[in-house]
Amino acid sequence: MAAHVIDFLTLGNNFGTPEMRAVWSEENRLRQQIEVEVALAKAEGELGVIPVEAAEKIAKSVDANALDFNQLADESVKLKHTFMATINALQRQSGEAGEYIHYGATTQDIVDTATALQLKQAFDIVQRDSCLVAQALKQLAKKYQYLPMVGRTHGMQALPTTFGFKLAVWLDEFVRHLQRLNEIRERVLVGNISGAICTYASFGEKGPEVEERALTLLGLNTPNIGWQAARDRFSEYASVVALISGTLGKIANEFYNLMRTEINEIEEPFSAGKIGSSTMPHKRNPAALEGIASLTSPIFKSVALIHESMRVEHERDAMSWRAEWIALPEMNIYLSAQLQIALAVLKGMKVNAAQMMKNLELQNGLLLSEKIMFELGKKLGKQTAHHLVYECSMQAFEQEQPFKKVLLENEAIKAEFSEKEISEWLISQNYLGSAPEKVNVVIRYAEQSGLLEE
Amino acid sequence: MAAHVIDFLTLGNNFGTPEMRAVWSEENRLRQQIEVEVALAKAEGELGVIPVEAAEKIAKSVDANALDFNQLADESVKLKHTFMATINALQRQSGEAGEYIHYGATTQDIVDTATALQLKQAFDIVQRDSCLVAQALKQLAKKYQYLPMVGRTHGMQALPTTFGFKLAVWLDEFVRHLQRLNEIRERVLVGNISGAICTYASFGEKGPEVEERALTLLGLNTPNIGWQAARDRFSEYASVVALISGTLGKIANEFYNLMRTEINEIEEPFSAGKIGSSTMPHKRNPAALEGIASLTSPIFKSVALIHESMRVEHERDAMSWRAEWIALPEMNIYLSAQLQIALAVLKGMKVNAAQMMKNLELQNGLLLSEKIMFELGKKLGKQTAHHLVYECSMQAFEQEQPFKKVLLENEAIKAEFSEKEISEWLISQNYLGSAPEKVNVVIRYAEQSGLLEE
Amino acid sequence: MAAHVIDFLTLGNNFGTPEMRAVWSEENRLRQQIEVEVALAKAEGELGVIPVEAAEKIAKSVDANALDFNQLADESVKLKHTFMATINALQRQSGEAGEYIHYGATTQDIVDTATALQLKQAFDIVQRDSCLVAQALKQLAKKYQYLPMVGRTHGMQALPTTFGFKLAVWLDEFVRHLQRLNEIRERVLVGNISGAICTYASFGEKGPEVEERALTLLGLNTPNIGWQAARDRFSEYASVVALISGTLGKIANEFYNLMRTEINEIEEPFSAGKIGSSTMPHKRNPAALEGIASLTSPIFKSVALIHESMRVEHERDAMSWRAEWIALPEMNIYLSAQLQIALAVLKGMKVNAAQMMKNLELQNGLLLSEKIMFELGKKLGKQTAHHLVYECSMQAFEQEQPFKKVLLENEAIKAEFSEKEISEWLISQNYLGSAPEKVNVVIRYAEQSGLLEE
Amino acid sequence: MAAHVIDFLTLGNNFGTPEMRAVWSEENRLRQQIEVEVALAKAEGELGVIPVEAAEKIAKSVDANALDFNQLADESVKLKHTFMATINALQRQSGEAGEYIHYGATTQDIVDTATALQLKQAFDIVQRDSCLVAQALKQLAKKYQYLPMVGRTHGMQALPTTFGFKLAVWLDEFVRHLQRLNEIRERVLVGNISGAICTYASFGEKGPEVEERALTLLGLNTPNIGWQAARDRFSEYASVVALISGTLGKIANEFYNLMRTEINEIEEPFSAGKIGSSTMPHKRNPAALEGIASLTSPIFKSVALIHESMRVEHERDAMSWRAEWIALPEMNIYLSAQLQIALAVLKGMKVNAAQMMKNLELQNGLLLSEKIMFELGKKLGKQTAHHLVYECSMQAFEQEQPFKKVLLENEAIKAEFSEKEISEWLISQNYLGSAPEKVNVVIRYAEQSGLLEE
Repeated sequence: MAAHVIDFLTLGNNFGTPEMRAVWSEENRLRQQIEVEVALAKAEGELGVIPVEAAEKIAKSVDANALDFNQLADESVKLKHTFMATINALQRQSGEAGEYIHYGATTQDIVDTATALQLKQAFDIVQRDSCLVAQALKQLAKKYQYLPMVGRTHGMQALPTTFGFKLAVWLDEFVRHLQRLNEIRERVLVGNISGAICTYASFGEKGPEVEERALTLLGLNTPNIGWQAARDRFSEYASVVALISGTLGKIANEFYNLMRTEINEIEEPFSAGKIGSSTMPHKRNPAALEGIASLTSPIFKSVALIHESMRVEHERDAMSWRAEWIALPEMNIYLSAQLQIALAVLKGMKVNAAQMMKNLELQNGLLLSEKIMFELGKKLGKQTAHHLVYECSMQAFEQEQPFKKVLLENEAIKAEFSEKEISEWLISQNYLGSAPEKVNVVIRYAEQSGLLEE
Repeated sequence: MAAHVIDFLTLGNNFGTPEMRAVWSEENRLRQQIEVEVALAKAEGELGVIPVEAAEKIAKSVDANALDFNQLADESVKLKHTFMATINALQRQSGEAGEYIHYGATTQDIVDTATALQLKQAFDIVQRDSCLVAQALKQLAKKYQYLPMVGRTHGMQALPTTFGFKLAVWLDEFVRHLQRLNEIRERVLVGNISGAICTYASFGEKGPEVEERALTLLGLNTPNIGWQAARDRFSEYASVVALISGTLGKIANEFYNLMRTEINEIEEPFSAGKIGSSTMPHKRNPAALEGIASLTSPIFKSVALIHESMRVEHERDAMSWRAEWIALPEMNIYLSAQLQIALAVLKGMKVNAAQMMKNLELQNGLLLSEKIMFELGKKLGKQTAHHLVYECSMQAFEQEQPFKKVLLENEAIKAEFSEKEISEWLISQNYLGSAPEKVNVVIRYAEQSGLLEE
Repeated sequence: MAAHVIDFLTLGNNFGTPEMRAVWSEENRLRQQIEVEVALAKAEGELGVIPVEAAEKIAKSVDANALDFNQLADESVKLKHTFMATINALQRQSGEAGEYIHYGATTQDIVDTATALQLKQAFDIVQRDSCLVAQALKQLAKKYQYLPMVGRTHGMQALPTTFGFKLAVWLDEFVRHLQRLNEIRERVLVGNISGAICTYASFGEKGPEVEERALTLLGLNTPNIGWQAARDRFSEYASVVALISGTLGKIANEFYNLMRTEINEIEEPFSAGKIGSSTMPHKRNPAALEGIASLTSPIFKSVALIHESMRVEHERDAMSWRAEWIALPEMNIYLSAQLQIALAVLKGMKVNAAQMMKNLELQNGLLLSEKIMFELGKKLGKQTAHHLVYECSMQAFEQEQPFKKVLLENEAIKAEFSEKEISEWLISQNYLGSAPEKVNVVIRYAEQSGLLEE
Repeated sequence: MAAHVIDFLTLGNNFGTPEMRAVWSEENRLRQQIEVEVALAKAEGELGVIPVEAAEKIAKSVDANALDFNQLADESVKLKHTFMATINALQRQSGEAGEYIHYGATTQDIVDTATALQLKQAFDIVQRDSCLVAQALKQLAKKYQYLPMVGRTHGMQALPTTFGFKLAVWLDEFVRHLQRLNEIRERVLVGNISGAICTYASFGEKGPEVEERALTLLGLNTPNIGWQAARDRFSEYASVVALISGTLGKIANEFYNLMRTEINEIEEPFSAGKIGSSTMPHKRNPAALEGIASLTSPIFKSVALIHESMRVEHERDAMSWRAEWIALPEMNIYLSAQLQIALAVLKGMKVNAAQMMKNLELQNGLLLSEKIMFELGKKLGKQTAHHLVYECSMQAFEQEQPFKKVLLENEAIKAEFSEKEISEWLISQNYLGSAPEKVNVVIRYAEQSGLLEE
């Protein structure tokens, strides 16, 4: 049975989606490699590099389903080579035309281009689900545009804001992610079929043409020059994965904190029968949120690993690309889980507006200390006001008294301001600033970008 | 004296350039923070949020040069706050107008926007030097377009290529880096002045206008919504730094390997009097190359640290942004050294064409085994040819015999091919494939991109 | 002015202590290097490798204070070597005896052994402060051994525990750290003076003796074999730094969470005049805690960087050890700040016992669901009990009813249990299990280990 | 099919051994979890916490082989809990005694203690194979104690050394690794069965006894206090894994470099039929070496991930331990491959003594510049000698002349030294210093440590 948790039957779906696992499965990897061999043969047939009949025979004969992975594994051990066994098997499937399989190519051509094909499949999933998350954020931001809640800095209550504002910050971030994905797409999804050290020497003069034709057949872009020694594209993709995952980890961590028993402002989707603990029946844990949050660190590690793979020696070495074999699937698989679980959370979460209101009152007025300071400052000068309000705040906190009471007992304040004024300034809903307006700005920008349309 | 090697008098220039250090110096940090306070006051004066005279007075009075860092440090300890001491000092400089300094703003507004200003300065340097490196690579690629040398995979001699081809791969990579810098520039260089939790509540209704005006004065873009809780821009910039540094580290490592005593194909710039070792007088070490190569790992670590800073809690927390204070200067400073040293190496390096030729002959013909295989394959079939050539290669290697001799002693080969044919196939210069042509493709693309123009 | 925040006048003390910065200062680095040169000369004098008078002259003449760093820097640029300028300066200071300075040694001998001396100074500080933190934890654990508070899992209230128990877990962890420091000390604090590639060839036959004598004079251990190509000792030390920092980061994060406005169970030391925010006068932020917590990630990055420095090429290369120059000071300096700030927090923190009690009641009984389940299970069977209590818990949570009320309205429960029984089971203080007892176990072990004694 | 390369049929054995994969397989994980449940039941039976018959029934009835992973997976989805399905299945297997399974325990008790059991199995493998590698290094160091070869610094030829010396440096490093494993073993292999938040409340008063008895049955140590919130043991183990892997990566990288076509001093084991390239028949690649070398970076990433898992919130959270589920198997599996492949390389590698000799002569005498300098220095003074030899070295290098010739043409040298003297000083074998002697020191230490005995 599998030894990596990604492939565990019981736990795997917490670490990836079946859809994304399928993209990076051993089976699909081989399937894409064979697609490349076939496209290469076709291109070479068209361009007269190999007999056209051989190309046709190859295209008809090779069959991923008929390959036996255990047999490939055994032969690989004997050859001490990770791909020759596959070539041999395809040759056997193709009869005499087998002579023309892999013609002019080096193993790396096939492996790299197949990886690009897998990456394209993964890219599409990530782009689709990032768009869905952005849409969900947009809906929620709109829905809760005016719902007041406590804003917190340094973990401490700071000022009132709205829940929609919080969501709009993330929406704006996701719009940037979608822009990023768009910008890198064509630069990243590039194949490479140029022979042992990318000089096409083995293809004869038609090398570059063969490559372009084969890659076009595969739906990939053609590079200016071979990239066996230039792996920056994977690192570039990984960087955007890091950004997306960073946002998702932050969102999950935020909801995890808002769900704390003592804060209790939201709850992740709960369904009857969900068990929080094998021994504490009352537990309703943020299991989904922790699931999302816990995957950002592993993704960052995979991203860092891919970055290191940029250090290729000479025209190619195996140390760099093995890191890709590990890290590229990992980051995509973990991200697929984050995106899908985030989507489920966003769609099914419970928002506890009453508790948000309660929390706005928790500090008994101190939440509005800035407002008081600015109003006092108009008459008393800002510095004097800061000093006064600081003293009153500290007193209210330490003596656990209502802020209003302390303010009104202060001679300097009492002399200038009425209870009515102060009472009004202490109303959270009056001090939301431009929060709701900014939600509109973000949504408008998102809509105009066209990036949220399917 | 300084404790971080970046600030060492004797070693600092190996880890950064004076120019880039100046950008991130404590002095410039303060200077940019004061720029932000002044721009904010001006904008608020223009828009009537504060008296216009106060704004003018502030702009005239505040003076970074007159501030005493030791005094600021002492006061910060008392206040247990990292910026209040600066505000207080500026207030003292501004007399009564001091009441209107920092009006409506939170410390984070100033710190973040000043960081964006520093980042802009750093960005310009990185963009300029990346362009210079690309230009140098272009010149070298052109110059050595046809210079034959050994191509290596897995550290072993593989096939002939040209030195220009190797350089063109890197040029193409740098063109991509320049594209990336272009694409992210406007998205990354964005300020933020929106109050305690980005709702502008303290600015009154004109908050968004104040921000836009102040940022415009500073030459920064205005965000759709405050980003105190959305630090992805720094991570995006860091990602491109990682890519550039990855390429530079690879180039340096490549030259380091080509400079090995036993390979000896290039030498980094040597000047009379340069000492390689305190005890071995003959040593001419790749000191500059090791200098470049050694900085990629530290940059990757700083990039990874910035990535983690994306995980902001609530509307803001101090744990994330402190990572930025560490990592953002580090990555820019290290990269500045890498770029400048790389430039010096590219411009002054010695290319040893004679040794390149010698190395092409080192394997006594085996370097052309692929060529032989394809030629034999035309008559014998590729698989038979592979088998034959494999056997002959192994024999030549193990018995240390010339490849040609072994080939010609083989009955099957002797029967079909002449010594003249085989001799010609064994000439490295005849088997460069499309290498020189590809150099043209890359240069043409680079030129058409317009990115290499200053 | 300095460009790295470690060396900032205004911010530096948030990232390191003056004491630890001094250890890694450029000045002390040079001072220790000169100590090594002197010890080497003395040892060589004693063993007759150089004239004893020359050794004496050197010991008397060389003077770190008389060296001019700017001049060393200028000369280093000319020589393109980082240490020759120092040797030259020392030779000038020593007159004719200068011929015998650095005799037989290679630069790396001096640099590495001086680093070991600096590391020894740093090690002592880390060991001392780790011990102090452990002592502080011990005192607090004892003091709060019986203070009941809410235990939380997944961020949600789980069961009652005591504050002393929480502290005892950390104390036990710190005792392990002290054990680790003890175990690695002798293996890590090892010098190396063995010539260009550690064969002692330049010292003649007395090489190993010279090394042992010089290192003994310096108070360092002698290795079995030179370690220019074996840097694992630094990585081993770094690993323990990572563990200590991991614990400190966790503690700080825990207190940060317990200090949240809504939880409010502890407060970091507050002093009159402490400013939380430039705009929100009421803010009392966990600034010290965030300071500690924010340094664990940078330390982890430095540790990871040191790990990579293990990959030395051949007998030595400059790429690996430059990582040490960056990372070794960083991790020690950041850790010094974490330890000292942690100490201040532990000694001055406020514990809010009343609020702990309030939070125990916050869930209106649900906190004891496990207790109820076990008691019910004695009569009804555990599975039945789990089912019943789960249902009641969910109802109490969703309808915001007291748990006791829901339990007593349940027919199955009502039939078997009295209100008195259930009331007693719902008292938090009755369900602390072995928490207080375990505090004793940990303290006893700590005391018997002898590691907490100064 | 599997999506992680660790579990690939065709590639998996390059990334781990079947033996170590089995330890971390989903199947063994479940098996160990069940072992823990059984040991717990037995201990509780013995101590009267549950009926002794129930304990016996459980021990007899539960059967890992009878569990269906797909069914467990389906039920986990419904319960949204990763372990409840297993408990339910075991209860079904145990009939009425099922009520007493998992009695008092929380899921984390079982998961953590089972992980400790898996770790113990992994630890044994790592310790065994590290010992085997050390033994192999010892044999090789002895065998090649006197075999002269070039020592290199900065990638450039520096001085003569012996191959045995190089190996002895690594042997000494592995002896340190074995010491480290010994030191941490008892501290790391510790179980934990103490209930929901480690207070044993659910076990009644006998909690600590139950834990100790159950852990003793399982062959694990008992902690002073529960470690659900203290994960440093895993990080400590990971740190030693990092050190071992760092050494293995370095060794592999070193051999990779020594195997370069142009250096050619060693070759990794080659067997007839081994294919280096699908297109270049002559290629004999360092595939095994690259395999080893490529795994150090992924291990470092997993180690870094585990370090982050130290940051537990409150009494427990799921974000930290999920990192363990990923990283702990990864690092052990990758390391198992590194150790086993290293062993195969060390046992089967070819050492090319003739080429080592050739390389000693490659610089035409410059390799002995230090020796010449010291001999000249005896008459001319060291500084004069350094100057002279530096000039001659640079000339010999730049004009590609034999060093001896240049030296003898120098007036100052010619005047004082004979050709015979200089010729002798230029013999590499005469300038090995204490290299062979140090091999003895290292081997003696290794033997006396007792750590290399099985």
